[in-house]
Amino acid sequence: MRLALIGFGVVGQSFAEIVSAQSAELSRTYGLRPRIVAIVDSKGAAVSPGGVDLPSALRAKKDSRSLGGLGGVYREGMSAIDVIREVDCEVVVEATPSDLTKGEPGLGHVRAAMKEARHVICVNKGPLALAMPALIELAGHNGVIFKFSGTVGGGTPVLDLAKKCLEGCTIDSIRGILNGTCNYILTKMSSEGVDMKDALSEAQRLGYAEADPTADVEGLDSACKLVITSNYVLGTSMSIRDVDVTGITGVTMEDISSAASEDKAVKLIGHVGDGARVAPETIPLTHPLNVSGTFNAITFDTDPAGEITLVGKGAGGRETASSVLRDLIEIRQDFAK
Amino acid sequence: MRLALIGFGVVGQSFAEIVSAQSAELSRTYGLRPRIVAIVDSKGAAVSPGGVDLPSALRAKKDSRSLGGLGGVYREGMSAIDVIREVDCEVVVEATPSDLTKGEPGLGHVRAAMKEARHVICVNKGPLALAMPALIELAGHNGVIFKFSGTVGGGTPVLDLAKKCLEGCTIDSIRGILNGTCNYILTKMSSEGVDMKDALSEAQRLGYAEADPTADVEGLDSACKLVITSNYVLGTSMSIRDVDVTGITGVTMEDISSAASEDKAVKLIGHVGDGARVAPETIPLTHPLNVSGTFNAITFDTDPAGEITLVGKGAGGRETASSVLRDLIEIRQDFAK
Repeated sequence: MRLALIGFGVVGQSFAEIVSAQSAELSRTYGLRPRIVAIVDSKGAAVSPGGVDLPSALRAKKDSRSLGGLGGVYREGMSAIDVIREVDCEVVVEATPSDLTKGEPGLGHVRAAMKEARHVICVNKGPLALAMPALIELAGHNGVIFKFSGTVGGGTPVLDLAKKCLEGCTIDSIRGILNGTCNYILTKMSSEGVDMKDALSEAQRLGYAEADPTADVEGLDSACKLVITSNYVLGTSMSIRDVDVTGITGVTMEDISSAASEDKAVKLIGHVGDGARVAPETIPLTHPLNVSGTFNAITFDTDPAGEITLVGKGAGGRETASSVLRDLIEIRQDFAK
Repeated sequence: MRLALIGFGVVGQSFAEIVSAQSAELSRTYGLRPRIVAIVDSKGAAVSPGGVDLPSALRAKKDSRSLGGLGGVYREGMSAIDVIREVDCEVVVEATPSDLTKGEPGLGHVRAAMKEARHVICVNKGPLALAMPALIELAGHNGVIFKFSGTVGGGTPVLDLAKKCLEGCTIDSIRGILNGTCNYILTKMSSEGVDMKDALSEAQRLGYAEADPTADVEGLDSACKLVITSNYVLGTSMSIRDVDVTGITGVTMEDISSAASEDKAVKLIGHVGDGARVAPETIPLTHPLNVSGTFNAITFDTDPAGEITLVGKGAGGRETASSVLRDLIEIRQDFAK
């Protein structure tokens, strides 16, 4: 199966590493022989119909932060849209950075790929947060498969659990801790008594938070993931604009102490059921959602199976790349049907 | 689809309730029209080729603790084996009480059903704890589907999560809190300082523990679930005899206090990876496995998706019956392929 990989950051590189390392096993276990025929970075694209040599691409990126070192196969100035239109492939993996206000450039890439009848695996939350219902319709119209497991929960199979493992149940509501950065900050404030500013600095130092942490601490990243989960699992047609969002910047040490005195913890919770909101809430210390550090957790309130909670790392290059691989295996299996 | 329901206890009755209440939805959503053509209780069987009237059967059971009140369709003295051999049906649901030493009568029922070329949904842990590899072979030999989702985690989709949602990952080890009774007792000892005897009495009073709690507190129930999970998910061929089992009866208040002083909790953990064991262990309070009360939790240690933990109710009639329904939907979908 021929893939174009758009975006060669942490997730894109991890995906290339996994494909390179596991090729024999993927072929044996799943009949999957992924061939990455193009990799697009910010300055151009490496294109090779026989498959870009992945160890060389990873080395070039590491040595010079660019794929230019690949030599002849690298075409400077070739854009993602050029690749999507001109390079023969079955699947486009969209892994450029998320933009939550306009969704670009990912949104344009996803649309172009679908119009060219390529299946799409999207790890970029932006296009989904803003235009998920339209993209699902466009995929159906063009007869392509559209997967996006890595947008919620990193490698933790949040969307798949709800869709594949709860048949026969109704899901009445969903609550989740969907942003590891906020959870790290709130956990640190609670367990060590440090204030928000210091907790955020520490999160940045450890690489859990971006230099500009706005999307995390203002709750927008959580809202994106809530929208994607709700649309996929509950069949809603929301965009991020339909979510009532409050971030964690107003949470004080007093809020945290007051909650602790009632055996509760302050967490940034995304909730969908009666309406959709993201806000700091208190939850009992003994509830399974009360996970610490950078963990993400999501609770599906089901009938008749009761409350079911899934916990895992919500980010990480290798973890998120494992979701891309899962999506690719599913596309392969859908082919075979 | 015609079903014979063997065993009409809490799970069997809950399943009949769900099938009765959701028949229109099951038909619409899954094309599933389950018709329960026989229900076996301890004294005989109700048999009706057009389908036993479920509200009447549930009422009869409630009023007189027997299906005798159903009148003409009830055949006193007709055994499960008679039903399996003589009543035309596609699926046998084995829901008699678990026996963990010989596996009977469930084991005989499952074998007979497979030999009669009936698909089997087993909610009884006994046959699987003792003879799972042989039963899987027998199912294959007879070309029938063998499902047992309800044996681990009640309604929480422990087995399905590992099998359906972690494609492309390797699972290196599994750890779980697999028995709600033990977890309730250990939680109560830890949070309220009551000793084991009183905690067990309270568990019995609340219906969480049996009058004879041996299988729970000695760790045998946890060991069964560990065996089933390991065989299904990791492809081992174990029986309960291969598990090194220590129950919770030796856990003292001192053990619990000592763990608490190190920010840890004592939990009965089933572990499979390097060997298979069930024993009280200490885990950090902040680990997602540290669930309280009657919750069950299981952690899959995966590569590259990291540690993934699923938490839910591990028991309950309606919850477990939802697993039977899931299995039935899958059998229906396998038919349709």
